Formats: sequence, structure tokens, C-alpha cells
Amino acid sequence: MKKIAILGSTGSIGTQTLEVVRENGDIEVLGLAAGNNITLLEKQIREFRPKVVAVWKEEKAKELRENIKDLDVKVVSGMDGLIEVSVLPETEILVTAIVGMIGIRPTIEGIKAGKHIALANKETLVTAGHIIMPLAKEYNVQILPVDSEHSAIFQSLQGGQHKAVKKILLTASGGPFRGRKPEQLMNIKVEDALKHPNWEMGRKITIDSSTMINKGLEVIEAKWLFDVDVDDVQVVVQPQSVIHSMVEYIDGAIIAELGTPDMKLPIQYALYYPERRYLPGDRVDFWTLGKLDFEKPDMETFYGLRMAYEAGRIGGSLPTVFNAANELAVSKFLNREIKYLEIMEIIEDCMRAHKNIENPSLEEILETEKWTYARIESRR
Amino acid sequence: MKKIAILGSTGSIGTQTLEVVRENGDIEVLGLAAGNNITLLEKQIREFRPKVVAVWKEEKAKELRENIKDLDVKVVSGMDGLIEVSVLPETEILVTAIVGMIGIRPTIEGIKAGKHIALANKETLVTAGHIIMPLAKEYNVQILPVDSEHSAIFQSLQGGQHKAVKKILLTASGGPFRGRKPEQLMNIKVEDALKHPNWEMGRKITIDSSTMINKGLEVIEAKWLFDVDVDDVQVVVQPQSVIHSMVEYIDGAIIAELGTPDMKLPIQYALYYPERRYLPGDRVDFWTLGKLDFEKPDMETFYGLRMAYEAGRIGGSLPTVFNAANELAVSKFLNREIKYLEIMEIIEDCMRAHKNIENPSLEEILETEKWTYARIESRR
Repeated sequence: MKKIAILGSTGSIGTQTLEVVRENGDIEVLGLAAGNNITLLEKQIREFRPKVVAVWKEEKAKELRENIKDLDVKVVSGMDGLIEVSVLPETEILVTAIVGMIGIRPTIEGIKAGKHIALANKETLVTAGHIIMPLAKEYNVQILPVDSEHSAIFQSLQGGQHKAVKKILLTASGGPFRGRKPEQLMNIKVEDALKHPNWEMGRKITIDSSTMINKGLEVIEAKWLFDVDVDDVQVVVQPQSVIHSMVEYIDGAIIAELGTPDMKLPIQYALYYPERRYLPGDRVDFWTLGKLDFEKPDMETFYGLRMAYEAGRIGGSLPTVFNAANELAVSKFLNREIKYLEIMEIIEDCMRAHKNIENPSLEEILETEKWTYARIESRR
Repeated sequence: MKKIAILGSTGSIGTQTLEVVRENGDIEVLGLAAGNNITLLEKQIREFRPKVVAVWKEEKAKELRENIKDLDVKVVSGMDGLIEVSVLPETEILVTAIVGMIGIRPTIEGIKAGKHIALANKETLVTAGHIIMPLAKEYNVQILPVDSEHSAIFQSLQGGQHKAVKKILLTASGGPFRGRKPEQLMNIKVEDALKHPNWEMGRKITIDSSTMINKGLEVIEAKWLFDVDVDDVQVVVQPQSVIHSMVEYIDGAIIAELGTPDMKLPIQYALYYPERRYLPGDRVDFWTLGKLDFEKPDMETFYGLRMAYEAGRIGGSLPTVFNAANELAVSKFLNREIKYLEIMEIIEDCMRAHKNIENPSLEEILETEKWTYARIESRR
């Protein structure tokens, strides 16, 4: 039995990870961590019987303890709780499906405890890739990408050599507003932005997809995961989302991974890597597919993507500013406090105002996050 | 220095192999074999200085001996000559770029002499795959596919596991007559059929591409190379020839190799496998590519492809009949002795009339070839 723990078990990736566990039947879930949804968490506990469970707020943890007092499950809370789930002695793989920079410390502790990381928490690499990747190397653990694009790249790199990689072709659906110009984005409402054409995902990442900032975060993530410059990561709009990403080698050969939009594929690939297992679900049928389109991304309108390249190129604490500004701005947009285009304006303002720190420590990264939040809150 | 010999050095694949050798500068060519073009062969000899050269006809060999008497090169002829080039002691890789079943014996002897085979001579596997593949295993030599599609499949299988392969997606341009119906094929002339939309190739293979019989041969070749049933090889028409072929795994992931149409890529990949090297040439630009189309092949009009599946499914000596009938029919079409659609009629007639031999020996394969030729020659 493979043994895993999941941070963010009640979210989109977390629940799909548990579906993969359920369908395979040979993975033991030793730990779960969730934010607020203790109703779903309790169901998961009763089905998968983890040993330790973390809930973010202590009051919710208390409530959960009461609800599951018939079970022998330890309920912990806060950052200490998250970390306790991340370092459980018998766990082999830690699935980091938590959203946001809150995932950095548990990921670091998981690596130090020798866990392979099935990484869906891209903010960790975006802001602390320079800490995470050398640490993973030092502790000889694998960072296994769980999102669709990076898993596709990871799959396309199998059997290849790093020195033979010319560039990475990161595909993007272009989101629901592909082809629109700035004036057509001014009055976008939350419910418009939450409609993604191909993928069903969490709310935050769906907004990020609509602004193409998700793609920008993925560009920076790819830089760390695959040890390339951001300028060797080319974003290709592929609206049908059938090609999940590609790698171009120095001989001109391009290796790609294609499939239907199903997050269970990269999840299962990460959990059983390098083995592939049967996965139920639809298959691409090329006889009826018709065509695949390709476009250049519009980085003038969706200039969050351009700013991501800038942040990734300069590095230091700038990617943290980019990411933190986006996190808070998106949250404000979802709360209907700001307009859609303000997401990009806020990021731009914070990046311009920031005094970059080279090679920031974890403390400096977290300081930078606070600085960014404070700057946004003090607007006007 | 890598050491190679090339059978069919003056043909399309042969000359491109020598271009790859020239561009890399670290491969020694120990042997060359050609049919009739001793003018080009002499140029190749003077540039690459092989030790032994084979020419098919002794009279041509004599002429060549006279022309290069200033050089220390042994000139041999006939099947014995071909085999001598195939088994040269120091050679590591034998490139079989010869066209037709004439390649079977030299390939077998090359394998027995421990040479890895860079295989461009598909007729060898189509007719004698049941002999070649176990032999390669026995002598621990690799069969490295040199045509574009099988190299793409081979590349897409790197890092994968055979038991995880669900099916092979063999792409086809559809040739110059894609979309036409039988009545529109009746009066096809040699020069029409020699115009391939994407690839520049030899004459025989260009005709085979136009009839889709080349794809049929490739289906049978894939069966042997990758140890799958022909019914697990799905032909997908991809008119732009950008996707060179794909592999679908049991989890639904599809790994593909894409690129510009340049035979030097699979040639170089085979020569340096598993290493990739820089290769000059155009690259696919997805920002300007626009789209890729996909279609189901029309196996009613191009029923040579359907017959190939039948031959591959039944096996035995039937693939030899299919291939030999096609070889002679295409040669007759190129000589303007028969009409275009007669190519398929002749194959069908021979396959219907043939009494299949299970697991045929090399002698029985060659007998079957003769039987097929005799049947065609005795038509009306």
C-alpha cells in the first residue's frame, strides 16, 4: 500500500485525489488537511480513515473533534497542524493541493521529512522555487507536478535529456475572454469570469485562467520545475485544451501530451509515477475531433501574463509580489470589491512600487507578502 | 567515432543519412551499397571513404572499380556483396535504406553479426517481422525505426511501459488524393501521383502514399516494431503532417511527436539514440501554425489500407503477397503499363488467390513473392 497525505482535501484537486484513491484501492490516506468545510472533511474521514486531520481554525477543529469522537482520529489545527499532517512518519507522498502561499512551510517541512511532493500548490514554487528545488535535491525527494500542463511537460520529458531541451511550449485555453480587448473586459462580472470553457476548477484558479495570470504563474512554475529560463517557456493558446503542453528538443522534435480535460490523469500519474494505470473516463477521438487551433496569446490585453514573465525573469521577491497581489486582488474581485481590470492594475502597481530582494529567505518572502497586502489595503 | 554502413546510399533516405553524417562529423561510414547510380555512389565514396562498397549488378561494379582505381576501396556485387557490406566487422549500426524485399537477407545477416538496425526498409518487417524481431532479441540488437511515423511512435514510447500502451495512433497525410472518390481516381497519371503534399520521398513510396498502401505497410510494420495487434493501430489522417504519430496509454494520456517534415530528424535520432543532437532546419511555430486537422481515413476508396489490416491480422505469408503485389503493381504503374486503380485490384486478386502459409520461413517468403509476381504477369 502506498501511503499519502493530502493538504487541501476538500478542494477541487483534493476531492479528485480521493477519487483516484477510491478507484485504485491500494493507497492508504494517513493525513488530511482542510480549511473550513468540516462537513465534507468528516465524510472523507469516515471513508478513508486517516490518522491525523488538520483544520485551519481551532474552533472548527474543536467542532470536528466533537463530531467524530466515535473515531480514533487526531484533529489538529493552524500552521502547526498543517505541518504535523505534512510530516507524518509513514507517508511517502504529500499531495499539496492547498491554495496560496500558505502551502510553502508545510511543503518545506514535508521535503525535510523525506516526502515526495505531488505539487498542485503552484504558489509555493512561484514564490519559493529557489528554496524548494535545491531542498528537494538535497533530501532526494521528487517534485511531481499535478496540474495538467506541468504534468504534460513532465510526461513529455520522460526518456529525454535535460541538455537536449530547447524550450517548453506551455499551452493555454485562452480562457473565457480570449479574443476580447480591454474595453470589452471593463464590466466583467464574477459569474462571467467563473465560466471556464474546458476545465472545472476551483474559484480562484478559474479567475486566474480568465486573466491568463494562471498561465503566468505556470510559466514561473515551469522555470523551477524544469530548470529553464522563463524566456524558454513559450505560451501557446490551444483553445480546445486537448494538447496539455509540449517540449521542443534541440533536434526540432516536439513531444506533447494530449488528452481529455481530466485532472485525475495528472493526479494519478503523480501518485503512481513512473507507472501508468488504467483510468476510467473519456478518450480523445481523433476521427471525430475535427481540428486543433493554435494562437499567439494577446499579452497586451492580458498583460498579467507579460508581468509574470517580468517577475520570473527578474526573480527575487518580485514573483511573490506578483502572486500575493493577484491573490488578494482576485479575492477582492470575488467579493465584488473591485472591478475585473483592477486585478491587473493592482499587480502592476505593487510590482512597480516593490524594492526587489534577491534570493529572499522564507521570512523575507512572507514579509513581502505582508508588504503587498498592506499596499493594496492602503489604496486610495 | 560511431561506425555505420548504409544499404541504399544513393536513394532518398541514404543521401539524407549521409547529410546527417556530414553535419555531425563524428560518424565513420565503413560500407555503402547502391543499385545503379554509380555516378552518385562514386561521389559518396570520394567524400566518405568507405572500406567496402556494393553495387547490385556486377557489370556496374566493374565500371565503378575502374573509376575509383585510385582509391583503396573494395567493390563487391550481388546479394553476396550486399551481405558483405551488412556484416563488416567494425560496423555498429546498419542503415537499411534499400527499397523492397531485397533487404530481408542483408538485414538478417546484419542482425546475426550483431549490428543494430536503423530500419528504413519497411518491407523487411512487413514480410518477415516474425523472423526479424525474435532474431533481434536473440542477438540483443536494437531495431531503430527510421521513417517518420515509427520514429515518432518510438520517441513517444520513451519512458513508457509496454504494458501501459493502449493503442498506437499512426498519422497519415492522406496523400494528394485525399477526399477523392474512386471515379476521381480512374485516370490518375504517374506525374499526379508523384506529387506528395508534404514530404519529398522516393518514387515508389510516393505512389504508396497516394494509395495509402504506404500507411497499410506502416500498420503492419508497427505491429512488429511495437508488439501490438494491427487492430490496436489506428490510422488518423492529419493532412498537415505536423503530428508524426502518437501513442495512447491506458490512462488516456496520449504522447505525440510533432515536427516539420524532415527525414533527417528520425535518421539522426536512430543514429544517436537515445541521445538527441542539434539538427539545423525549420521548426514548427505554433503562433503562426493556425490549426491541425484530423480525419478518419476513407478505407472504402483507399481499400489498399483495409487490405493491409486484413493481411496484418491474418499474418503468415499474406503480408508478403500484399507487399509483393503492390511492389510489382506500382512498378508497372510507374512504367505506365497499368492504370492507377489497378494497383489495388491486383493486390486484391493476389490476396484472394493465395493459399496462406503460417509462420513462413525465409525461403517460403521468397517463394510467395515469386508466386505473386508470376500471378500478376500471367494476368490476361
